Amino acid sequence: MRRWRLWRRLRDDPRVLAPVLLPGGFDVHTGNIGIKDDTADVMLLRATDGSAAAAGVFTQSLFSGPSVKLSRQHIAGGQARAILVLSKNANVANGPAGDAHATELVELAARAVGCEPEEILLASTGVIGVPYPMAVIRGYFSDLAGPSPGNYPSHHDAVSAAAAMMTTDTHAKVAEARVGSGPARVVGIAKGVGMIEPNMATMIAVLATDAQIDPAALDATFREIVADTFNALSVDSDTSTSDTAVVLASGAAGPVELDALAGALRAVCVDLTRQLAADGEGARKLLVVHVSGASGREQAKRVAKSIVNSPLVKTAVAGADPNWGRVAMAIGKCESDTDIDPANVTISFGDTRVYPSDAADPGRLADYLEGDEVEITVGLGVTDPTQPDGRFTAYGCDLTEGYIRINADYTT
Amino acid sequence: MRRWRLWRRLRDDPRVLAPVLLPGGFDVHTGNIGIKDDTADVMLLRATDGSAAAAGVFTQSLFSGPSVKLSRQHIAGGQARAILVLSKNANVANGPAGDAHATELVELAARAVGCEPEEILLASTGVIGVPYPMAVIRGYFSDLAGPSPGNYPSHHDAVSAAAAMMTTDTHAKVAEARVGSGPARVVGIAKGVGMIEPNMATMIAVLATDAQIDPAALDATFREIVADTFNALSVDSDTSTSDTAVVLASGAAGPVELDALAGALRAVCVDLTRQLAADGEGARKLLVVHVSGASGREQAKRVAKSIVNSPLVKTAVAGADPNWGRVAMAIGKCESDTDIDPANVTISFGDTRVYPSDAADPGRLADYLEGDEVEITVGLGVTDPTQPDGRFTAYGCDLTEGYIRINADYTT
Repeated sequence: MRRWRLWRRLRDDPRVLAPVLLPGGFDVHTGNIGIKDDTADVMLLRATDGSAAAAGVFTQSLFSGPSVKLSRQHIAGGQARAILVLSKNANVANGPAGDAHATELVELAARAVGCEPEEILLASTGVIGVPYPMAVIRGYFSDLAGPSPGNYPSHHDAVSAAAAMMTTDTHAKVAEARVGSGPARVVGIAKGVGMIEPNMATMIAVLATDAQIDPAALDATFREIVADTFNALSVDSDTSTSDTAVVLASGAAGPVELDALAGALRAVCVDLTRQLAADGEGARKLLVVHVSGASGREQAKRVAKSIVNSPLVKTAVAGADPNWGRVAMAIGKCESDTDIDPANVTISFGDTRVYPSDAADPGRLADYLEGDEVEITVGLGVTDPTQPDGRFTAYGCDLTEGYIRINADYTT
Repeated sequence: MRRWRLWRRLRDDPRVLAPVLLPGGFDVHTGNIGIKDDTADVMLLRATDGSAAAAGVFTQSLFSGPSVKLSRQHIAGGQARAILVLSKNANVANGPAGDAHATELVELAARAVGCEPEEILLASTGVIGVPYPMAVIRGYFSDLAGPSPGNYPSHHDAVSAAAAMMTTDTHAKVAEARVGSGPARVVGIAKGVGMIEPNMATMIAVLATDAQIDPAALDATFREIVADTFNALSVDSDTSTSDTAVVLASGAAGPVELDALAGALRAVCVDLTRQLAADGEGARKLLVVHVSGASGREQAKRVAKSIVNSPLVKTAVAGADPNWGRVAMAIGKCESDTDIDPANVTISFGDTRVYPSDAADPGRLADYLEGDEVEITVGLGVTDPTQPDGRFTAYGCDLTEGYIRINADYTT
C-alpha cells in the first residue's frame, strides 16, 4: 500500500514520465546484448563531437573490478569520449580472464565509436565471479561497428539510457537541472541500489552536461558534490566492488559560470541520491538524517551514517515507530566521539522534537511517520548548530521484510 | 522448520534441561517485581559469605545508563557482594530521576542483602526513556529486607536466575565449566540479544565461580576473554547502552591455578556467546566467521566483524546461498587495509573452499548451508595463516524476516 503510494508518486513525477533528452553534444545507444533475457542491458553514451571533459569517482573496495580499474586509468587525464555500461554482470573476481575481457570490451566499444580505447570508460554491475559471454558480446559489437565506425543506431532519450542500466531497480532514475539561466543543462542517470542475482548492491551514476568547463575544475567540483550526495547514501552499509559516478561535459552549450554549473550538478546528484535511497531493496520509505552541531564534518558524517545504517532505526522507520531510544543508541555507539554529551543532544522526527521531548501531539507524529519520507534531525550540541562545517545529511531507507526476501529467499 | 530444529537441539541440550547449581558461596533470589506481567523480572545474585572478588566489562556507549555508571564505580576496587538485575526497563535517558532511581535501587538491595550500597552491582535491560515503577519496587524490597536483612527467599538454580533476566530471549542461557580437575567451577548466565518493547538490544552476562583468585588477576583475565567472546558477538551491529559482563569469585572452593581458571572462564564465555548469537532476533542459524593470516589481531577482527555484520552475507546465510561474492565484498569494504591483496585471499564455507574454487560438490555445499550453524573461514594472505596474532573469530547469526517482524511490526 505504502509502496504503491511511492510508486504512484514516482510515476506521476514529471521527471520520470516526461522524456528527458540528453544535453547537446551527446547521444546514446541502448540494446540487448544477451545478458538480460530480452530488455536492454547495454548502454553506450558518447560525446558526438570529439572528447568531453570528464571526471569520475569510484568505489574504494579492495576487490574493485577491472571495469573500475580501467575507467580510473582512462579518466585520469580529464577527458573521455564515451562510457559503456553492461548490466547484470559485474565482471568482478574473474581473475586474469576478467581483466582481459574488460580490455577487449573497451577495444570493441572504441572501434564502434571510432576513437581510441583510452577514451572509453567502462562500468559494470551485477553478478560476481561469472565471466562475460564474450562470444555474443563480440558479435554484437561487430554488428554495431559495421562498415563505418560511429554510424550505429543511437538516440537522445535519457530515460531509456537509465533503463538499460537497471538490474532490479523498480524504475529508471533520471534527473536534470539547468545551469544558471543559460542554455546549458545537466542530465544525470543512475541505477541501484537494487540487487542482481546472485547479487551485488551497486550504484552507477552517469551525468552529462553541454556546459563547457575545464576538466580540473570539473573534477574538483564533482568530487566535492559526490562526497555530499552519493557518498552520503547507504541502503545496507555494504560497499559495492563496482560503484562508479562519472560526469562528461561536451561543451556544446559554451562556457558557464563554475558556481552555476556546481549548483546544477549538485541538484542532479541530490535528486538521484534521493531516488536511489527511496528505491533501496524492499524500501517503502526514504530516510533522511540531518546532523548539526558536530565538532566538524567528519563527526557529523559519522553520526549521520551510524543512524541511517542502524538496523534498529531502519526497522523502527519501517514500523512507523517514534522510537527515539534507537536514535540515541546509534549516536551512543560512536564511542570515540567523547565530546558528545547526551545532555546536549536533541533528536527530532520531522519537526517534532522527541528528545528532550517537547510534549508533542502523538497523533501528529504518528501521521508523520506513516508518510513516504522520514526526516530525523539530530543536534549534537558540540558546536553551534548553525556552523556549516558541523553539518552532514545522510540518505537511506527503511529495512523491511522485502529486503530479506530479495536477498535471501531469491537465491542462486 | 529450521527454527524448530534449533529449538529441538537446545531443548535436548543437557546444559539447558539439567539443573545447573551456582558454585559454592553464592545464592540467588528471583521474583516478579511488577515490571513483567507475571514471570520473574528481578534477580539478586549474592556472595553468601562476604565480598567476592569481582571484575566487569561494560558498554562503551556514550549514552550508557546509570546502572552501568554505578556498577563501573562499585566494581573499581575489585570486590562486590551482589548483583541486582532488573529486566524489561533499561533506565536509560531518564535524566536526573534515572540517576536517583539507580542510586535508590542499590540502597534497597544493600539493605536486603545486609551490606554497603557500594558492594552492590546493578544491571538493567529493556525500554529506554521510561522511569522505573519505584513505588512497587520500594514495596518489594521492603518485604524482601523484612525484619532481619539477608534472610530473604533464595535458591541455587542458575537456570531460573538466567530466566529472570530474559526479555524476548527464547530460552534461558546457562553454561558451566570445571576449573582444571579440582572442585572449583565457573557458572555463567546471560541474556540477549533479544529485544524488548519498545526495544533495545542488550546483553548481560553474569559469571560466578567458587575459585579463590586475586581481583587484579581476575580482572586482567576476564578482560582478555571478553574481548574474544562477548565482544566478538554481533547480531545487528548496534551497540546497547546497557551491555554488562561481570564475574564474581567467592573463593569457597579454595585457590586454583590461574591458567585453569582462565580456561574455564573462556569455555563458559564462548558457550554463552554462541548461545546468544544463535538466539539473535529472528535467527535461524549461528554464523561463525574465522579470519586468519591478517597483519594483526585488529585487522583480523575488523574483517571478521565486517563479514559477520554484513546484511548481504547474513541474508545469504539465511537463504542457504553459497554467495562468496558477498564475503569478498565485505572484505573489500575494509578500505584502509590496503595490504590485503584479493589474489591471496581464500574463502571457505565449512570445509569447502569457494574462492578460489576447489570445484567442490555443490550438493554437499548446499547440504552444509542448510544446517543450523554456518562457518565461514577467510585467509587474508597478509601473513602466515598459522600466526596466532593474525587470527580472530566473530560470532553472529543470519538475518531473517523474523528480525524485521520483531523490530518493526511489533511497535509501541
